[in-house]
Order: sequence, then structure tokens, then C-alpha cells
Amino acid sequence: MEFKVNSKELEKLLTKIIPAVPTRTPMPILENFLFEIKESSLTIIATDLEISMKSSINIVAEKDISIVVPARLTHDILKSFGDTTVNFEITDNHKINLTTDNGEYSISYLSAEEYPEIPNFPTEADDINEISINGLDLKHAFDTTSFAMSKEEMRPSMMGTLLEFEEDGLRFVATDGHRLANLQKKNIIAEIDDKYVVPEKAISVLQKILDEKEIKMFMSNTHISFKLNDIELITRLIGQKYPEYRSVIPLENEYDLKIKTKELLNAIKRMMLFSTTSSTRRVKFSITESNLEISAEDIDMGNFGKENIMCEYNGTPIDIGFNSQYVNDVLSHLVNEEEIILKLHSANKAVIIVPSKIKENQDLMMLIMPVRLNN
Amino acid sequence: MEFKVNSKELEKLLTKIIPAVPTRTPMPILENFLFEIKESSLTIIATDLEISMKSSINIVAEKDISIVVPARLTHDILKSFGDTTVNFEITDNHKINLTTDNGEYSISYLSAEEYPEIPNFPTEADDINEISINGLDLKHAFDTTSFAMSKEEMRPSMMGTLLEFEEDGLRFVATDGHRLANLQKKNIIAEIDDKYVVPEKAISVLQKILDEKEIKMFMSNTHISFKLNDIELITRLIGQKYPEYRSVIPLENEYDLKIKTKELLNAIKRMMLFSTTSSTRRVKFSITESNLEISAEDIDMGNFGKENIMCEYNGTPIDIGFNSQYVNDVLSHLVNEEEIILKLHSANKAVIIVPSKIKENQDLMMLIMPVRLNN
Repeated sequence: MEFKVNSKELEKLLTKIIPAVPTRTPMPILENFLFEIKESSLTIIATDLEISMKSSINIVAEKDISIVVPARLTHDILKSFGDTTVNFEITDNHKINLTTDNGEYSISYLSAEEYPEIPNFPTEADDINEISINGLDLKHAFDTTSFAMSKEEMRPSMMGTLLEFEEDGLRFVATDGHRLANLQKKNIIAEIDDKYVVPEKAISVLQKILDEKEIKMFMSNTHISFKLNDIELITRLIGQKYPEYRSVIPLENEYDLKIKTKELLNAIKRMMLFSTTSSTRRVKFSITESNLEISAEDIDMGNFGKENIMCEYNGTPIDIGFNSQYVNDVLSHLVNEEEIILKLHSANKAVIIVPSKIKENQDLMMLIMPVRLNN
Repeated sequence: MEFKVNSKELEKLLTKIIPAVPTRTPMPILENFLFEIKESSLTIIATDLEISMKSSINIVAEKDISIVVPARLTHDILKSFGDTTVNFEITDNHKINLTTDNGEYSISYLSAEEYPEIPNFPTEADDINEISINGLDLKHAFDTTSFAMSKEEMRPSMMGTLLEFEEDGLRFVATDGHRLANLQKKNIIAEIDDKYVVPEKAISVLQKILDEKEIKMFMSNTHISFKLNDIELITRLIGQKYPEYRSVIPLENEYDLKIKTKELLNAIKRMMLFSTTSSTRRVKFSITESNLEISAEDIDMGNFGKENIMCEYNGTPIDIGFNSQYVNDVLSHLVNEEEIILKLHSANKAVIIVPSKIKENQDLMMLIMPVRLNN
């Protein structure tokens, strides 16, 4: 059975789907695409068993068939063709014969039965929620918060981002226990009061493919489906309960330190050069009424750095230590805010960081745990 | 003792010198710069004991001193300063105190005595040759030939590029025994009849820093010095005799295959997708009067590709195999030539590849050894 496609069109589609193909897997079958030809539509599916992605193009085919084809080779070949018409001939002896103006190529395929079961959205479930979101809004929320997710498998729920539907907006929370990012998008309102923990893989793929187009999200207790223009991404949810993050956010941080974001970030980047050896990569903040002194020391090498930055501070003078890498991560995600406010209480209490200008559509808050200063 | 420099100016200079700092070395002292302050000039030196690089800037200093400073940290700090004035204070207790408008920083230094002896050009030798070359000419010669150098330490001389001064030009030769690049620059004429084998490291650094400016080369039996505008790069030469490459260049390859370079290169790139499993990455050329069929097969996976390209061929039909990677390397370095000629004799004889249009200023020739076709 045969069909024709434009190589560039098919390649573009494969490029969108291929992020779901795992690079290292104990199950080599996952390094394949599933090609489903049905009613003159070619649907291409990839999965790593946590997420699955699928997309379709129209073709003219006289028969329905499902086959399993090597993902990277097929993608590379299509890419190498440039922009031309490719004839696909699927033979009974497990070969795909490709013909172009340039030449003939043959790839072996496997039977569809060898492909594992794909994470599918349980459309029959009775607790399904649905919402439309602007793609850039969702991308901004992930871009702002996902850096704080944990990379450690000790607590699986922290390896995802919490999506919490509230009356006044959709909240995105990520934390690894050392720092926390907390963003409420007030313009995403839905009659939903559920929460979902989305794993890192789905988020990192979405960050790459989301654009200004509207997307649809379908949520069940076990899965979320993201429907973009021509792609569907389905991910399993993390089943574990998300930690009670609200209990670590201090309420009585009564001291405000107002400072220019870029000045502090640039100084932190310099301090990182001097805080390389200690495991906590410590930078010290010494805060007085109108001055923040930050300093870092590499005791092994005998190097140190110290800078003073103008600020406004309304509390009692305080010395407090941080992991410079974490401060850098947090500030890098606040760099569009001209000024930020650090809310402090004492040297061993979590510090809250918020933009000094409140935005209409969002409520953004970051948190960093201090590290001990050894005096 | 103190002096001031502009951070950006010093950083630019360090950026040029730092390629000589080894990234992994059993001698950690080589991960430092040598700073030599003498007669109001700061000279910065780096070496991996094979090459050394040095450059100077003028400063106002009241004392001569030589110190050893951590290369990457110093470079990173200067870079982080942006464009500002930095005050260097070199204290007697092995500290460099840096002061800028932003803050104060301190780096430990070592005594100059701890730095090893730098590869120096033997200016007293009586067999020194000297020549001026346009920087882009030299860069083009290295860019065209250096890919063919051997990476294997079995035959050290092949890990460098041969510079052979001839009456009618300077010849550059590189080979790893499987392919050979041979370029004579007819516009580089000197009253020299020596040859030199320049190691890979010096060439790869020069490829990055050469520009349209004239450079001076000083050559002794043991070293070459390249003097660019504000940088001097000195390299040891490879002492071993370069192989008699002329004896492997066949003279009786009487059959000419004329073909469009890009068409063949694009086809080879597609064939590489099918020639991944065999150790020789074999691609087969089946040549007839006006047609070149190239094909490759992945026997393990059961995949294959085959293409036909128009050509002009004046010999008897021939089947010949090549390592597709080597063909790709050679053609990638001939891609500015619209048409090339492959000169052949038989399936087990080296093939010569030359541009079909002869250029006035250069004589370029590549060679590839065939691989066995198992029929």
C-alpha cells in the first residue's frame, strides 16, 4: 500500500513529536514512532510511557494500517530530503520503501502489536475538567516557576509543578525544599477547584512548543491532555500528594528590603565566582538601613569578594547567608521586574521575594531558605 | 605596588591568551597565567608546555614584578566587571586586591618561580627563517587541510600539519593514512627550502584568532613563532619525520569522474544515515559513463539507500567503496568548488579529488583510500 507526503511537512510534524521519544531507555521499542493510517489520516505517536504526543496529517491512502518505525532515522531521513515529494510504500515483508527524485530508500518496520500501551486520556471518566488558556500565558507560568522543581527522586511530587485552581486564578507552585516559586495567574479563571501535579518532562516539552495560540487542557484524576493546534500532549499526573507548601511561607516577615533587581543579580553573579568551594556556595548579605553588603569567600583558595549596593531597608540590621546559586536562579526569573522587595524576619527564617510593583493579572512570590553563617 | 587597567581591555587580552591554558592537566600550575610587569608593560603568558601564548598592555607601574594568577577565575572576574577601571594592588603576602566602583575582591597569587619554563623561541639559533603571510591566507590553508590530521598517537608526526616550503609556494599537507589533504599556496613565496610539522593544538588556536592582518612567522629547527598584531604564539614542532606522503599519491589514475560537489555531498549525507553500523561506514560508488549510483546498507537493521547522480566519466565502469564519513569530510572542505573531479584507477587504488576549475593562487588536491566491497 502506498501514499505520498511532502517531506518538509512530515519532517516538521516529526520534529514536534520527537521530544517524547526517550533518548536512553531500557525499552528500545520506545525509540520508535507509531504510524497509524486510518481513514486517510496519518497519525504519528511517540511516548516514553509518562507522556505521549501525537499529531496527524492528511494523506490519500487506500488501506488502514499501523506500523512501528525507527524515530530518529525516519526523522533524519525526512530532514535530509529537504522539500520534496516522498512516496511511501509499505510492503507486507516489513519494509517501508521511500522514493524521491533523488533515490530510493528502505527502512524496516515492526508490527504495531510490539508497541506498548500509550498513556491515554481517560475520556470516559466522570471527573474531567476542561479549560482554554492562551499558550503564552501558560508558557510564561512554566518559564517563571519550573526552575524550582526538585531534581531528586526522594520526593516524587516535588519533581513536578503544582497547578492549583482557585477562585481568583490558577496557581503554579514549584519547590525543591530550598527555594519555592509561586505564581497565580488571575486571568485564568475556571469553575474548577482541583489541583494537579504535572511532571517535569511534560512541562519542559510544553515550554518548547507553546506559542500565542490558544490551547485546551483536559484534566482527569490521573492524566492531563494539552491540545495545541495540531498536537496533543498527554501526561500522567504525579499521584503523590504535593507538600503543604503554604505552611513554609512565613507570615510575619516584617522587614522590607527594596533593591534594584539587576544590580543585585549582577553582584550575585560576581559573588558566585568566589563561592565555588563550599557545598552551600554561600553568599553573605549584611543589611543596614540604606546599604546591602554582599560578600563571598573561597577559604581553600584564599579568595574573596565584597560589594555594596544601595537599598531601602526598614528593619533592624541583619546578617543572613544564602546559596548563591539559588539566589541567582530566583533573581534570573525576576529580571523583568525593575525592583524587588525581600521580606525578612531573621537569619534562620525563609525570605520572601516579590516584585515591588504589583501586576494586575498575576501574583508572583518566590522564597529562599537561608544557609547558616558560621561566625 | 599598584596599577590600574580597563577591565574590558584586559579581559579581551586574556580571552585571546586563555586557549593556551590546558583544561585537564596533571600540572595544576599550568592553569595559571604568568603576569610579568616590567618597564610599565604587563605581559600575560600562558602555556601547556607545547604551545605558549603571550600578549602585553601598557600600564603605569612603579615596580617590576612577576606573579602567577589563576587563569579562569581571573578571566571570569574581569569579564563580570563589564567596562570599568580596576585597581590592582599586589601585596607582599601573596594577594591581589582588586577594587572597582562595585566592590573589592581578593585573589591569591603564587610566585613566578613556581611557573614552569615556557616554550621559547630560540632567537640565538643560526638557522632561523622568517616570513610574512596574510592572516586569512594562513587561516584558509589550515581550514582546508587540518581536518585530515590523525587523532591517533601511534604516529606522532601525522598528528600535525606539514608546512613544506617549495620554490613555487608553501605546501600544507595533513593525513591520517585514510585520507589526505594537500594544498599549495602559490602566493606564499620565500627563499626557504625547509619543512616543519606543526602540532594540532597550535593550528586549532590559530584558526580561531587569525584575521585579515599580516602575521610574521619565525621558524627554527625546533619551534615556530607566529606573531599576530598583539599576540605571540610559540609552538614546539613535532620532531618526528613526516611520512613520505608523495609515495601514496597515485600517478596513473587515468579515469576522470566530473560531478557537482553539492549534489554529491548531499547524497553522501543521506547515505551516512544508512551506513552507521559497519565499522567502515561503507558507501558504494557504482560508476558508469554518465551516472554515479551511490548506495549504503545497514545490514543489521535491514535498511538501505540508493541514489543516482548525473556525472561525466571517461573510464571503464567501476564499483568502489569508501568510508562515508571520510568522503563527507573531504567534500565538506571542497564545498566552495562548484564541480570536482575524482581521478580513479581501480577499486583498491587511492582516489584523487581535485577542483575542476584550477585557481591561479593555489593547487588543491585531496585523496581518499577506498574500503573493500564484500560481494
